[in-house]
Amino acid sequence: MPSTAGQVIKCKAAVAWEAGKPLVIEEVEVAPPEAGEVRLKILYTSLCHTDVYFWEAKGQTPLFPRIFGHEAGGIVESVGEGVTHLKPGDHALPVFTGECGECAHCKSEESNMCDLLRINTDRGVMIHDSQTRFSIKGQPIYHFVGTSTFSEYTVVHAGCVAKVNPAAPLDKICVLSCGICTGLGATVNVAKPKPGSSVAIFGLGAVGLAAAEGARISGASRIIGVDLVSSRFEEAKKFGVNEFVNPKDHDKPVQQVIAEMTNGGVDRAVECTGSIQAMVSAFECVHDGWGVAVLVGVPNKDDAFKTHPVNFLNERTLKGTFYGNYKPRTDLPSVVEKYMNGELELEKFITHTVPFSEINKAFDYMLKGESIRCIIRMGE
Amino acid sequence: MPSTAGQVIKCKAAVAWEAGKPLVIEEVEVAPPEAGEVRLKILYTSLCHTDVYFWEAKGQTPLFPRIFGHEAGGIVESVGEGVTHLKPGDHALPVFTGECGECAHCKSEESNMCDLLRINTDRGVMIHDSQTRFSIKGQPIYHFVGTSTFSEYTVVHAGCVAKVNPAAPLDKICVLSCGICTGLGATVNVAKPKPGSSVAIFGLGAVGLAAAEGARISGASRIIGVDLVSSRFEEAKKFGVNEFVNPKDHDKPVQQVIAEMTNGGVDRAVECTGSIQAMVSAFECVHDGWGVAVLVGVPNKDDAFKTHPVNFLNERTLKGTFYGNYKPRTDLPSVVEKYMNGELELEKFITHTVPFSEINKAFDYMLKGESIRCIIRMGE
Repeated sequence: MPSTAGQVIKCKAAVAWEAGKPLVIEEVEVAPPEAGEVRLKILYTSLCHTDVYFWEAKGQTPLFPRIFGHEAGGIVESVGEGVTHLKPGDHALPVFTGECGECAHCKSEESNMCDLLRINTDRGVMIHDSQTRFSIKGQPIYHFVGTSTFSEYTVVHAGCVAKVNPAAPLDKICVLSCGICTGLGATVNVAKPKPGSSVAIFGLGAVGLAAAEGARISGASRIIGVDLVSSRFEEAKKFGVNEFVNPKDHDKPVQQVIAEMTNGGVDRAVECTGSIQAMVSAFECVHDGWGVAVLVGVPNKDDAFKTHPVNFLNERTLKGTFYGNYKPRTDLPSVVEKYMNGELELEKFITHTVPFSEINKAFDYMLKGESIRCIIRMGE
Repeated sequence: MPSTAGQVIKCKAAVAWEAGKPLVIEEVEVAPPEAGEVRLKILYTSLCHTDVYFWEAKGQTPLFPRIFGHEAGGIVESVGEGVTHLKPGDHALPVFTGECGECAHCKSEESNMCDLLRINTDRGVMIHDSQTRFSIKGQPIYHFVGTSTFSEYTVVHAGCVAKVNPAAPLDKICVLSCGICTGLGATVNVAKPKPGSSVAIFGLGAVGLAAAEGARISGASRIIGVDLVSSRFEEAKKFGVNEFVNPKDHDKPVQQVIAEMTNGGVDRAVECTGSIQAMVSAFECVHDGWGVAVLVGVPNKDDAFKTHPVNFLNERTLKGTFYGNYKPRTDLPSVVEKYMNGELELEKFITHTVPFSEINKAFDYMLKGESIRCIIRMGE
């Protein structure tokens, strides 16, 4: 195969021309990577709520035409100047947040909130030159969170690309680019439940199920799912959830229900809904003395978290996390290994697959609440 | 000296007959310890704000006549049935909170909030039989937080008594029974600043200065004192405070002032005032990605802690602590050793001493804001 490095590549991409309208498969031109960038051939991508949220564009300034997609697995096609940690042929996961390796956050052992490559949902261009790498007959097509994986080829900042084990199946590990790591890491990296402990998971969507999976892997013995939709409990059992509370079934606040079930509170709680009520409940349902609650879900802009400070003074801890505290380049390879050694069960998250030509079906499955993850097979 | 074990001891105590009225030195009768209790001869006691707060009795149901005092050092005079970890002659610190050794909190490595012996400011009697051990001519005199150290002899639950190195001077280490450990532990056990890091201390009273001392011992390089009284900065320098912010000197919120001073926020903050504003500021002034804020000060009953949840999601942590997370019996001996080896400098906290007969002077010093700690020499 002749090298395409340095050349514009023409390929198919699913373009969102307008908010909320079905994506259209178009032939796009993908420019070569500039300095510090990587061009990836995407083999599999999956749909996440965040794509749907920005595609619907109800709460933000719309930016169209745009190529969505940020959970994916692919192969490095070519690299721009100065990129040393990746080479053509490497298997890789693009990630919506990055790791420049130079800033205070990258140098801190505790943070993954890179100053340079932290998620930016408003930006539709590359950092290097404020230009897009996508165009259709000269018309620029905007990027989404630096990844735009609903395209057979995409250009990504090298700091947002994790090199992974080439033996790992990309049609499975592609889901690690966002939601699954977000939930998993919230539990294993931040809440850190001990074996035999109790964990409450608020929200049993993909992120919550991944948080439950983290609790299962950690050896938690009581994993209490909390959701307003009782039918989700059945599916959640596969992820280790072994008790269920629907706040609608109780007259008292759910934190009180959970405290009564657990002799004073759970050891850990992970909030994966973004509802401010759930955040307060998740914090207030952990045991005094040692309880830790972790916030994952993204709140509304005007929400205020409100609790009595004595809930803190009684030795409860409240933390938030972003992308499960994983540093994408440093940490993703080891998450892939957790899947490879059977510890992390990714198959359970994959409920649907569709060919790229039917990508809009993936949106339908998600909007109807039928899917956890739908894998989109590029090139089909 | 003939043994007094098993007998009523007549001795001097400073009795609070009414809220806010000077204490009166009286001859009291101190009954022998019952099962699980210890009778201590108090040699030195110091005055803490909490004594003054409950003596003033402005915010609570008053309970009088009562013997206050809860920071002290003494010697075990006799022990009740079943007490095995203490014997007559042991040097000991009584503590307002205890360690039963049996409950979930005592068994947890993370908690010091013993279910049985957790502080109870309303109770004026012993747990064993709901009786007082103090009386004057048959009239019961109430206890305070299980310690009542403003008496030459006092009876304390054995779980609230830490046995310490007999070589340690009781007139210095007596201050470890409450305020100093509360602030010190908030920093060294909970905030855990790394060497070279930045720490903001809100409130430069005794507890805040102890928190600063903890930051100094931890090797923090920037220790920023925050207080509404600028004159406190001078004294605070002795405790490692090397920068000072008075919120009154600025038009913008103090968290913003501190963020600007520190390139985005301090690594750690410790709140020692109890003001709800200060709690919010302490949390919001820590750096995203890794910042940890610790609440120590006791808020008003109706206060609500309120912040935007994104402040958590940006990987900030908020924790509260009680008595610096020290388990009294398990951990105090090692704090005493920190003093003995010169790491912890207790002398700096001791600004005044008075004979027991002049105990009311200690109240004056504190009410005028002149003292950090005033040691009261019993038997004088």
